[in-house]
Amino acid sequence: METVNQSKAFGGTQGVYRHAAATTGTDMTFSVYVPPHDEGARLPVLWYLSGLTCTHANVTDKGEYRRACAERGIIFVAPDTSPRGEGVPDDTAWDFGQGAGFYVDATEAPWSANFRMRSYIEDELPGLIAAEFPMADLARQGITGHSMGGHGALTVALRNPGRFRSVSAFAPINSPRHCAWGEKALGGYLGADRASWLPYDACALIDDGARVEAILVDQGASDPFLSDQLKPDLLQRACERAGINLTLRMQAGYDHSYHFISTFMNDHIAWAAERLQ
Amino acid sequence: METVNQSKAFGGTQGVYRHAAATTGTDMTFSVYVPPHDEGARLPVLWYLSGLTCTHANVTDKGEYRRACAERGIIFVAPDTSPRGEGVPDDTAWDFGQGAGFYVDATEAPWSANFRMRSYIEDELPGLIAAEFPMADLARQGITGHSMGGHGALTVALRNPGRFRSVSAFAPINSPRHCAWGEKALGGYLGADRASWLPYDACALIDDGARVEAILVDQGASDPFLSDQLKPDLLQRACERAGINLTLRMQAGYDHSYHFISTFMNDHIAWAAERLQ
Repeated sequence: METVNQSKAFGGTQGVYRHAAATTGTDMTFSVYVPPHDEGARLPVLWYLSGLTCTHANVTDKGEYRRACAERGIIFVAPDTSPRGEGVPDDTAWDFGQGAGFYVDATEAPWSANFRMRSYIEDELPGLIAAEFPMADLARQGITGHSMGGHGALTVALRNPGRFRSVSAFAPINSPRHCAWGEKALGGYLGADRASWLPYDACALIDDGARVEAILVDQGASDPFLSDQLKPDLLQRACERAGINLTLRMQAGYDHSYHFISTFMNDHIAWAAERLQ
Repeated sequence: METVNQSKAFGGTQGVYRHAAATTGTDMTFSVYVPPHDEGARLPVLWYLSGLTCTHANVTDKGEYRRACAERGIIFVAPDTSPRGEGVPDDTAWDFGQGAGFYVDATEAPWSANFRMRSYIEDELPGLIAAEFPMADLARQGITGHSMGGHGALTVALRNPGRFRSVSAFAPINSPRHCAWGEKALGGYLGADRASWLPYDACALIDDGARVEAILVDQGASDPFLSDQLKPDLLQRACERAGINLTLRMQAGYDHSYHFISTFMNDHIAWAAERLQ
């Protein structure tokens, strides 16, 4: 693992790191904020999965999470959203290919060689964090994310019961098989057989019996993607059917941007801290 | 004035705006955060002047000022650092020309036609804010800034006695006539006669009798520009000679980045709020 840069921030260290990832066959860049802590202390970890077009940098620059993580003693990890670089397949669309990995292990050519973000997020990067950040206590993990990354957070948590003590999302894609972004991405990466999509659809996972204890979702009521792509009503109904305790907050006047995310970031860190400390 | 974009943030409105500026002869872009407020309320204004290479966007994205401004009811205005665009003179260096206006009214060709940031910041933009933001109470203004913009904040405040109730800076260039950045910029924009530089040097202004009540300066002790360019000891000695109440805080481990600025932004907004409310 190579350190790209590090800065002191809110008493802790905001770093950006790069490593040669085996799952994706590419160099992958990610950021980690380690709050101030006593020597030898072990700290819980909150994962943040980003949305379409983003890298680690969007939330690192604009997420405003460091103060709350410093106050509550939480490590914040922000991975990239796809493999990148020369030789990696791409698409001219902004919602497919590089920057749009959708947290799946692709099975279709040409994507299947590199677009293995499920394995990267679920297995490889946690292993690297454990090895390189000895203060990270992976017995205490939470996960959150935005939009495509909210979909990622929900599905990673639902597929890995017991791993995450807290789960939340900002304006997640709640059921990718029921929106254009998801149909394009899952069809492109996994093929036309919609049965292969189900492990990547939070509502389908819940209907299939997957459970988490509770979920916090914030959704801007003025989000332009609300009714066509995000559809929180689908998650609400799936959670009702399953008896999952969903706190869905419609936030009047807020859009899909980092101004929405940063406004409610403190609440999601508090949600995680209550379950991780 | 044209609205480039607006988002709800922390209960208020973060906007980016553009207008045809008479002083610079160019379109100028700036951002304004208006916190939540009662109808008819009038709110104080905090100006933030940015550093070399920046536009309005750097602090708008990375400054983490919105929560504190929302809590304290302060309007936050972030201008650009120079005129820009085709037909505007530029230089291949990052520390001169576009993105490096140094808050002067240039007198040397080819810069004098457009590089009139002193007049833009002192006269034209306040007039526009007063006209377009009726909740802005320009009887209650504060000013701050970073690096080149810290130099800007100090010199604008010192040249306009009584206008700013609060003055602070993050890692300012304290005496541009005593560092390479400043000698290059002031020499380039104003010519070789160093007497013409004095209205743009905080220490020279203080030695010439200019006064403000108090100044807060935060400075990262690990800032790579500390000893060669920023030289807070020069400001400290000028304030001692003048009896100006300078609070200079050397912050151990912090660098020159927005991780430093965002960490201490709350303190600077509190400093302003104490004097503006």
